[in-house]
Amino acid sequence: MITTAGKYILTITCPDATGLVAAVSGFLRDENCFIDQSSQYGDPSTQRFFMRALFTRGDNSAPIDIIESRFAAIATKFNMVVHIVPADYKPRVLIAVSRFGHCLNDLLHRWETDQIAIDVAGVFSNHEDMRRLVEWNEIPFHYLPVTPETKAQQEAQWLALIDALNIDFVVLARYMQVLSPETCRALEGRCINIHHSFLPSFKGATPYQQAFARGVKIIGATAHYVTGTLDEGPIIEQAVERVDHTHSPADLVAIGRDLETVVLARAVRWHAERRVLLNGSKTVVFR
Amino acid sequence: MITTAGKYILTITCPDATGLVAAVSGFLRDENCFIDQSSQYGDPSTQRFFMRALFTRGDNSAPIDIIESRFAAIATKFNMVVHIVPADYKPRVLIAVSRFGHCLNDLLHRWETDQIAIDVAGVFSNHEDMRRLVEWNEIPFHYLPVTPETKAQQEAQWLALIDALNIDFVVLARYMQVLSPETCRALEGRCINIHHSFLPSFKGATPYQQAFARGVKIIGATAHYVTGTLDEGPIIEQAVERVDHTHSPADLVAIGRDLETVVLARAVRWHAERRVLLNGSKTVVFR
Amino acid sequence: MITTAGKYILTITCPDATGLVAAVSGFLRDENCFIDQSSQYGDPSTQRFFMRALFTRGDNSAPIDIIESRFAAIATKFNMVVHIVPADYKPRVLIAVSRFGHCLNDLLHRWETDQIAIDVAGVFSNHEDMRRLVEWNEIPFHYLPVTPETKAQQEAQWLALIDALNIDFVVLARYMQVLSPETCRALEGRCINIHHSFLPSFKGATPYQQAFARGVKIIGATAHYVTGTLDEGPIIEQAVERVDHTHSPADLVAIGRDLETVVLARAVRWHAERRVLLNGSKTVVFR
Amino acid sequence: MITTAGKYILTITCPDATGLVAAVSGFLRDENCFIDQSSQYGDPSTQRFFMRALFTRGDNSAPIDIIESRFAAIATKFNMVVHIVPADYKPRVLIAVSRFGHCLNDLLHRWETDQIAIDVAGVFSNHEDMRRLVEWNEIPFHYLPVTPETKAQQEAQWLALIDALNIDFVVLARYMQVLSPETCRALEGRCINIHHSFLPSFKGATPYQQAFARGVKIIGATAHYVTGTLDEGPIIEQAVERVDHTHSPADLVAIGRDLETVVLARAVRWHAERRVLLNGSKTVVFR
Repeated sequence: MITTAGKYILTITCPDATGLVAAVSGFLRDENCFIDQSSQYGDPSTQRFFMRALFTRGDNSAPIDIIESRFAAIATKFNMVVHIVPADYKPRVLIAVSRFGHCLNDLLHRWETDQIAIDVAGVFSNHEDMRRLVEWNEIPFHYLPVTPETKAQQEAQWLALIDALNIDFVVLARYMQVLSPETCRALEGRCINIHHSFLPSFKGATPYQQAFARGVKIIGATAHYVTGTLDEGPIIEQAVERVDHTHSPADLVAIGRDLETVVLARAVRWHAERRVLLNGSKTVVFR
Repeated sequence: MITTAGKYILTITCPDATGLVAAVSGFLRDENCFIDQSSQYGDPSTQRFFMRALFTRGDNSAPIDIIESRFAAIATKFNMVVHIVPADYKPRVLIAVSRFGHCLNDLLHRWETDQIAIDVAGVFSNHEDMRRLVEWNEIPFHYLPVTPETKAQQEAQWLALIDALNIDFVVLARYMQVLSPETCRALEGRCINIHHSFLPSFKGATPYQQAFARGVKIIGATAHYVTGTLDEGPIIEQAVERVDHTHSPADLVAIGRDLETVVLARAVRWHAERRVLLNGSKTVVFR
Repeated sequence: MITTAGKYILTITCPDATGLVAAVSGFLRDENCFIDQSSQYGDPSTQRFFMRALFTRGDNSAPIDIIESRFAAIATKFNMVVHIVPADYKPRVLIAVSRFGHCLNDLLHRWETDQIAIDVAGVFSNHEDMRRLVEWNEIPFHYLPVTPETKAQQEAQWLALIDALNIDFVVLARYMQVLSPETCRALEGRCINIHHSFLPSFKGATPYQQAFARGVKIIGATAHYVTGTLDEGPIIEQAVERVDHTHSPADLVAIGRDLETVVLARAVRWHAERRVLLNGSKTVVFR
Repeated sequence: MITTAGKYILTITCPDATGLVAAVSGFLRDENCFIDQSSQYGDPSTQRFFMRALFTRGDNSAPIDIIESRFAAIATKFNMVVHIVPADYKPRVLIAVSRFGHCLNDLLHRWETDQIAIDVAGVFSNHEDMRRLVEWNEIPFHYLPVTPETKAQQEAQWLALIDALNIDFVVLARYMQVLSPETCRALEGRCINIHHSFLPSFKGATPYQQAFARGVKIIGATAHYVTGTLDEGPIIEQAVERVDHTHSPADLVAIGRDLETVVLARAVRWHAERRVLLNGSKTVVFR
């Protein structure tokens, strides 16, 4: 936890090559910038390079837009996907929820007490249950009920809302509708879901009932990016808890709630802090 | 860890009913036996009852065979499957191994230092690699190579060996051959396997490679009873460890080795201490 | 998670003896009661016996007060401390808090969604910060500021409040005042505190700063009963999380918050369900 | 797990400064070296900078001794403590043990199966118990008994042995003698101990008995560098396991053995791979 004023987050994805770190760190030094934190990873299996740096502009540094434009030469040379954002920028988030409020309640508490640097621009739901909690937090509540017949239309409304609100990323905080592949693709890389099992075990519905039936001794929860294939998106974070023969399916649900809450909160925070980079169907997480 | 001399382990499985615990504990009191430990569980979903008790015969108690024969009336009344064994009885175990010796080395060390109350009657392998370690421990090493053509015959020899050695249970300590359904059935309930993944994820071969490809953030190992369906038997114990994007498949294998070792050792100890009772395709584990 | 209507929780503490379980289970059978769950433990080091049973009165059972009075003979014989309470009784709880609201917010969410069977009779604080959250939940908020000079008087007011509200137990949910030994004694066995370290490491103030200075690789949180000696009371539950050299004291505080929240919620639930029995300066927890 | 042939490990400790990463990575690029892995950390509280890089010399690179001598200019400029070693160099290790062999057995198994890149140059003990195991592994066994009277002399012999064998670092694998402050200082930074508790809880002798008496719900083990103050040295790694009221001190010892084994193995591997850098009384561990 470092004060973020006057600091910037730089993220890079590109083919791996000799001299990458030297090029980036040499550039920052020449711009009188101090590197507070830096993480990098070269994946031997994909030959891709990933980097995240937190840096501070020095007293004599150029304005950040000048620095950015000067960096373009390096980006081009190494074929980089580059982002430079102020470290104190709070991404605009839309949280989607259905009737279970534990993840929402937790995220709102963390947001309200400055534990996650996000700007909750709204909450979206297909049920009214969470309206009171959301409005008490003075956050707009968007109620869009859905039936099998209206599903396509409701998702279109929702995507329009995401555009209208200038949302950076969406959090499915136990939103219990399966999204259409089109909507998934429209949100690719900017929609985090919490699945209530230790993926890839127990995909789909009622994972705790599946876990009970199989008699596993450990259950889990998984936060992942949404893709067109159900519960197959890149995994951001997982956590587990021991269970035993005495636990009913309802007990597993209760234990799982705490896992879901913690795992989703971590994934949201890491994504907001730009610590998660996509590596094909997997993620690089610079914690 | 309680001294076991003069003590007995009682295990019961039966349909659940009112008065079960009263019948058993009243019987033991009337026989002047002291209950050192007792665990019981009634499964609401199957209406089955499970009990394990450790008791001490008193100075005025009848001989254990008399106590056993007197218990038959209760067992009949409640339709119980009952076992009473001396707590210091060490089950005769055959360990099967292929070329990876970490589980074997660990089990032998625990056996040699009295950490697991088993009698290692022999080690069986389709390779010669572990002969030196086994024979240094003065344990008979049974080498039975196998090819696709000789598989049926080799398994028959192995089953004959299990009979000849009066084996109570078999431990597959990274024995890398898939057993035929017939052999699995012949060993049902008395053969423990260690699978190198967090089941039901990543069944079958090369689970660490599968875990790497999926990009999971936690890997695991699972000890289970062998049944006719590959990697589907009742789970005894599981353990997990965090991993991240920097771990290669070889790293996952290395981390997994430690998990496999600990999980298998626990399962073997619990089974040897009669703490594991079968509940359909699941287990009740009284730890 | 078992429906509790028509069920009762029986807890027993007494010197260990032969025939205890037989006496209790025989009594319940003779009263036509079905034992849903039962846990017992005889501590070899203190020769004390502990038992918790969940039982259902049968159709022909006597009223519970008759059953209770009939049990007195057994209780006397074995010198038992006995409690029989309806399983659906919700203990009346007073939560004390200062300025950090994470534990309070979590407890209130669990209470509101029926995840903990307690009746939150009020929240007490030496600060006004949490008033809004508490009153939104329609729970009385009791504000009692405190200075070194008024401490004795404030604690007296607080104890009077506990009496007036008929409180079963008190939860110190990050209440940041050290209670006087007299108040601690007055609340002995019915006051749960969350300490923000893995006790017995880092007692007293600023434990995360202490943990940072020592360079530990794992931090923790501890829920315990309050006694006259600071942070020395019987431990109910602990949890831990890995940390590393990159974590600042503020990071440890943030990670610790999640630990405190989960650990305190578990301790409160177990205490409310009468799963925690005192064993001298330690606890027996029947989970 | 990366093939280490032709690769080098560079470690740096120095005051933090702008341009450090640029200087190092620019140098390596100019020497035609490819950075396989790189980790760095600037400690805001001590203003110290730490770096570990794994790099590969290119086809046109100068010999490593030339590269090293050229690096001296940078090292001087930034006041660095620098080490460059071949990645396939196996440090020479002396393992000290008393009568409990679980850590020794585990380390030897990992060594023998190439899981830890160390060269076990000898085992030293104040007892004969482990001679057979050690000699079976064809490792010299050095038996130096000790009494309070001969302690100073025995430690002197031991230090002489360390010199004579050209030992890089010493592993106290449950060596149960407290070393004199002089010997501790002589081995500072190159002697790893496993303490059988979750430090700083339960320093000194019989930590499991202490943990039992306190009634903790989690126990642990700690690997740390030895310093002149007992159990106060920089912590390298810790691990924990849940326990409960049913565990006797002997059970805690048994559970602890598995923790000690795993924790010590990790610490030895990380130290051997030069992943552990000292930061005052703490460590930076680049995993």
